[in-house]
Amino acid sequence: MVPLDRAEALRLVGSVALGRIVFTRHALPAIRPVNHVLDDGAVIIRTHEGAALVPAVEQAGAPGVVVAYEADVIDPVTRLGWSVVITGYAELITDPGELARCRALLQPWVDQRMDYAVRVRPDLVTGFRLTDPEEQEEQAD
Amino acid sequence: MVPLDRAEALRLVGSVALGRIVFTRHALPAIRPVNHVLDDGAVIIRTHEGAALVPAVEQAGAPGVVVAYEADVIDPVTRLGWSVVITGYAELITDPGELARCRALLQPWVDQRMDYAVRVRPDLVTGFRLTDPEEQEEQAD
Repeated sequence: MVPLDRAEALRLVGSVALGRIVFTRHALPAIRPVNHVLDDGAVIIRTHEGAALVPAVEQAGAPGVVVAYEADVIDPVTRLGWSVVITGYAELITDPGELARCRALLQPWVDQRMDYAVRVRPDLVTGFRLTDPEEQEEQAD
Repeated sequence: MVPLDRAEALRLVGSVALGRIVFTRHALPAIRPVNHVLDDGAVIIRTHEGAALVPAVEQAGAPGVVVAYEADVIDPVTRLGWSVVITGYAELITDPGELARCRALLQPWVDQRMDYAVRVRPDLVTGFRLTDPEEQEEQAD
């Protein structure tokens, strides 16, 4: 289990299309799988009016609500891969120009109206790689 | 996006080895990827003394702390798959016999001492399947 630095961790998140947004809803932990893009160092996701995330973000006001965003690629057979957790403020993108730009960047995977876009600014970025201990030994030799 | 019933959702979680535990740490959302087994309808994971989850669960006392457990299999190419979120109380398994049994059921994926085991009793179970709209139409014909 090798820790990742911030730049490498963000690069890995940007290399995949899917992650999970983690937030608090009615004082309980909530998680939803979503697709994302990295835009200027921030995670952008799209969501819909009825989504649990929207009131959580709306009610927080500035500077937003703290959420976690997780992405991973772990092979269940080799048990190798990586996981990254981003923690930071989430905000609804309300500027019409910005919203239009984010919608163009990111197509929803589900057949549902996705009128909202949320930006998560990475404050804390942590991650690790699961490596083969034997391979590491070989590299160390 | 087709909702899953509880039995099917739990069956799918049991069909994979990896998920993500979601909890609150210092009033912030936290998430960790872990491997799991389903045992008598509950999710069992193993963890270590230094893990952020342990004080979160320990400090809650009975009946435990509420966590979410998420598992998914979503193909990034076809965009088909499923996701399940289990919400329920998490408790440390302290009975020595139970702990030994859970350790035998579940081998950790990382080369680290995993002296603790946590049981999540599913209270709320929600999930969905991402299906091909054209295939659904064919089935409806």
